[in-house]
Amino acid sequence: MAILNSNQIRELEKQYRVNLINSLIGFKPANLVGTISEDGLTNLCIISSAFHMGSNPPLFGMVIRPERENNDTLKNIQSVGQYTLNNVSPDWYRKAHQTSASYPSGHSEFKECNLPEFYLEGFKAPFVETSTIKIGLELREIIDIKANGTTIVIGEVLHLSIDEAFIGDDGFIDHESAKTITVAGLDAYYQTNFLGRLSYAKPGIEPQNI
Amino acid sequence: MAILNSNQIRELEKQYRVNLINSLIGFKPANLVGTISEDGLTNLCIISSAFHMGSNPPLFGMVIRPERENNDTLKNIQSVGQYTLNNVSPDWYRKAHQTSASYPSGHSEFKECNLPEFYLEGFKAPFVETSTIKIGLELREIIDIKANGTTIVIGEVLHLSIDEAFIGDDGFIDHESAKTITVAGLDAYYQTNFLGRLSYAKPGIEPQNI
Repeated sequence: MAILNSNQIRELEKQYRVNLINSLIGFKPANLVGTISEDGLTNLCIISSAFHMGSNPPLFGMVIRPERENNDTLKNIQSVGQYTLNNVSPDWYRKAHQTSASYPSGHSEFKECNLPEFYLEGFKAPFVETSTIKIGLELREIIDIKANGTTIVIGEVLHLSIDEAFIGDDGFIDHESAKTITVAGLDAYYQTNFLGRLSYAKPGIEPQNI
Repeated sequence: MAILNSNQIRELEKQYRVNLINSLIGFKPANLVGTISEDGLTNLCIISSAFHMGSNPPLFGMVIRPERENNDTLKNIQSVGQYTLNNVSPDWYRKAHQTSASYPSGHSEFKECNLPEFYLEGFKAPFVETSTIKIGLELREIIDIKANGTTIVIGEVLHLSIDEAFIGDDGFIDHESAKTITVAGLDAYYQTNFLGRLSYAKPGIEPQNI
């Protein structure tokens, strides 16, 4: 059994530590963030840090890494106030991964990675046409994290485009039918096998009967 | 194709909207949060909002819902300054889900859900013994979210307990060997099928060759 403390984690070889810590919490959602600059230049990048914050209003957060030269995502979100989250499927996940390459500003990952843009009337930010689940968000809050210089972006869902066939009678989205994949660490992609849906948990069950 | 705007989302039946929005971003990590009060009462609850924030220092965030009567997790983290994140496996995911039941304060979900506690010397917060990946964190930052009254808790990894057999030569954790599951929405659990690991993406590939 490996039991590491914070000193030992700090002393790990850099890339080893990056892989270890990135893969620590398990399977993460894979989402493509679509943005556009005020000049109309589009940008696309894959993230695995999107998280649900509440359903009324419908809010999602995501982590953006410290600003660097070719990082237009945060800049575009701040100036235009809108962005999209789009799911990723097995038949084109290599293209989605390629959006993590550091293309120079002015080069759109939509074009460089061969992922066509899609627009909804009245909404500026570009969606990924091939994604089966397209979420259009409006910026609500930007939080600078002192501990490491990252930024948490919080947005509210303004638009949602999804085939009705993937939505159950109770509103639950069947991501296996929608061909959504999941990611672990920086670069490992997975499909899923359904285990089960469990009913709303209530107290009063004997521990040995669970 | 269902295209919903924010007004239509707002008007959805409540439980339908909860299921829809909760399941929107895809597969999420399933983690059990272990805490202890200053009086030594333990608490355990399942979350699907943990997210990676950086590897140096090793930081993770998670969303805690607005405070209510029996919600001791945030209270314990604030008073003790420590908590744990533990992964969930197929053979006992029903017990993990049962921790979401609203047990009265003073009742430990470790006991009520038949999940034994595990402790590391010098660290106060309880781990889940049956979890194959145990992460001990120290509180770094608490952020109150204006938009909906939730709280983002950010912690740094102080301890890590995991079988070496699950860690690859490059630090990547094989969650399939570790039997980690993933969750969609409030209550749907999944195992995974490995698709592939992709190499570090660089510009310069012709779009049609990706």
